[in-house]
Amino acid sequence: MTDLASRQVEVPEGVIDLGVGQPDASVLPIGLIEEAAIRALSTPDPEALLQYGADQGDGRHRLVLSRYLASAYGVDVHPAHLVTTNGTSQALDMICTRLTRPGDVVVVEEPTYFFALGIFADHGLEVVGVPMDDEGIDLVALETVLVESARRQTPARFVYTIPASQNPTGLTSSWDRRQELAEMADRHATLVVADEVYQLLHYVEGPPPPMSALVPSGSVISLGTFSKILAPGLRLGWAHTTPDLALHLAGSGLIASGGGLNPLVSGLVTEVIDRGDLAIHVDRLREEYQHRVEVMDQALRTEMPEHVTWSTPTGGYFFWLRLPEGTDGAEVRRRARHHDVDVREGNLFTTGGTLREYIRLSFAYYRGDDLVEGVSRLARALHSAL
Amino acid sequence: MTDLASRQVEVPEGVIDLGVGQPDASVLPIGLIEEAAIRALSTPDPEALLQYGADQGDGRHRLVLSRYLASAYGVDVHPAHLVTTNGTSQALDMICTRLTRPGDVVVVEEPTYFFALGIFADHGLEVVGVPMDDEGIDLVALETVLVESARRQTPARFVYTIPASQNPTGLTSSWDRRQELAEMADRHATLVVADEVYQLLHYVEGPPPPMSALVPSGSVISLGTFSKILAPGLRLGWAHTTPDLALHLAGSGLIASGGGLNPLVSGLVTEVIDRGDLAIHVDRLREEYQHRVEVMDQALRTEMPEHVTWSTPTGGYFFWLRLPEGTDGAEVRRRARHHDVDVREGNLFTTGGTLREYIRLSFAYYRGDDLVEGVSRLARALHSAL
Repeated sequence: MTDLASRQVEVPEGVIDLGVGQPDASVLPIGLIEEAAIRALSTPDPEALLQYGADQGDGRHRLVLSRYLASAYGVDVHPAHLVTTNGTSQALDMICTRLTRPGDVVVVEEPTYFFALGIFADHGLEVVGVPMDDEGIDLVALETVLVESARRQTPARFVYTIPASQNPTGLTSSWDRRQELAEMADRHATLVVADEVYQLLHYVEGPPPPMSALVPSGSVISLGTFSKILAPGLRLGWAHTTPDLALHLAGSGLIASGGGLNPLVSGLVTEVIDRGDLAIHVDRLREEYQHRVEVMDQALRTEMPEHVTWSTPTGGYFFWLRLPEGTDGAEVRRRARHHDVDVREGNLFTTGGTLREYIRLSFAYYRGDDLVEGVSRLARALHSAL
Repeated sequence: MTDLASRQVEVPEGVIDLGVGQPDASVLPIGLIEEAAIRALSTPDPEALLQYGADQGDGRHRLVLSRYLASAYGVDVHPAHLVTTNGTSQALDMICTRLTRPGDVVVVEEPTYFFALGIFADHGLEVVGVPMDDEGIDLVALETVLVESARRQTPARFVYTIPASQNPTGLTSSWDRRQELAEMADRHATLVVADEVYQLLHYVEGPPPPMSALVPSGSVISLGTFSKILAPGLRLGWAHTTPDLALHLAGSGLIASGGGLNPLVSGLVTEVIDRGDLAIHVDRLREEYQHRVEVMDQALRTEMPEHVTWSTPTGGYFFWLRLPEGTDGAEVRRRARHHDVDVREGNLFTTGGTLREYIRLSFAYYRGDDLVEGVSRLARALHSAL
């Protein structure tokens, strides 16, 4: 029997999968997209949406996006510095194709977004993990790796970082650390690829500026996406970098042949941004997710056994729980499944298997009661595991 | 000043660029897409269009597409054998990422679609051209290349072919040649990547079946796209291959991370196919392009100097003109530009620069009077060059 699923993740009936790092149906703006489609296809130049697109992405889209980012990021953003992408995953894949060769080193935070590792593996890259502290990536350890890989004639092509509300730890790197990272990359003639997917989903005031602000330093590619702030199914995002790097990425064989990425969808999203609807929607998302953080945090405080610890997330999608010493996250996950709840074990996110005492929970895919029930089931599984 | 263009190609005012291999605005089905967007976002499950998509592509989309292809191709097509792509360019890029490493050999027809060469270059592949005769790729020459690359320990990963209405020659490979090519690939443990972009745009009765029909032989990946039969801006296509290869492609890091490709757009196109509108639109395109072929053919017969020869296209987008012996296509192109008309010189499409006496014209981007005027300008340029 053929699998004719519509979604990437189909959670079995009755299960609460707190591992799913995706928005749920209730926050997907179907009405906005439908209105935008009608408006975009009724503009004086609708053919542009259906034709092969400009290599860096539609001009009006990049203009409108640059204004939105300038306001939302509080950063100077120019359309010539933007390349339209199919989202962060495709941007990473294109960066690997255009800027690396098999055997090259890429540096990642330890732990990191584990699906990025699959993209790096497709390109035959050697992935080196560098630990983090409370401020972000450990710069002393990073410099050692950069020096060592240069010495071995396998220079690190880039450092992959998730500066805001990191996946999986929820950690937000400090502004100082972000600046020092960009400076270090510059000194060692490498790049910082900053996956800023959660930069706009902050639930406390005054987060540090995005690494996008450091683009003028010349060594930063900042990746953004509409997946988390509008809808994943759009497959639309952007890379913000120097004009030279933007042209180099847009000069890929893929784009020279097929034209700029996703002209139709970028035309729809232009309408959503231009009417101010994106800003309003992001405000709503912040409010909704902040509420879910509070619900989950309260449930965890009530239900978790002693010696399970976490920091309350200030943005993004995730709680990163440290289990009591000696507890195996993978074993907890197995037991959790018997209680019809699922999580992700910490070692999924590592290159070295050093985080067995952690699990990652997400509050993005469920609302109020389901979050409480999921945490309650997890607590039962944990009690049985300890 | 930033380039804020909307389109990949912007032809200067007053110029007729017969080199552009893209559909013109008059054949882009804006109304169909708008209606489809409204319908798709009003179905009982519109969230599926906005969520991370199933890895091989939306199930209903693949089901509806498989039925359309079965009817239009006259071939057995099963949804499990299809992978949704962002079009042929992205499919080629993904095939290179998943199935090749730098230094590997890929074989192309000589001449071939020159933008594919840019994709292969991004992946560090060694491209070997094999000549064609009237029936398709020269199998004796191909076998020599396959044997030689295996002997050198750089096996040919695939043979890239455009079986129907080839770009740039307009040549349609015979059914025998297609079968023999698939058998030869199988014998030499390599693949045929068949770019079947013009398979459905045939203007005479009874074209050979697509190489898609040879998928059961196990060595064919057939690539299709909605770019030429609906609109390039959709960035949507498909790969038809064995279930194993389909799963391998859909198992890319890119898709594991970002989900199946283009869920929103595939949802819209499902509606266009399911209502029968695609079949009607393709019939209209055939009629329109056949008319343009007749207009251009007649204009060429009237205007071209002696010893310029061509075959009247039976499908696709292109006329492939052989110039009088000793005439340089690149020089003709330079002169043509002085007459406000443009073409593409034959050597653009070669790996070896052996086709200087050819030029490629397209009838896809212009209608009646513009085609006649373009040919007339080209004739003046040619007369001045001879």
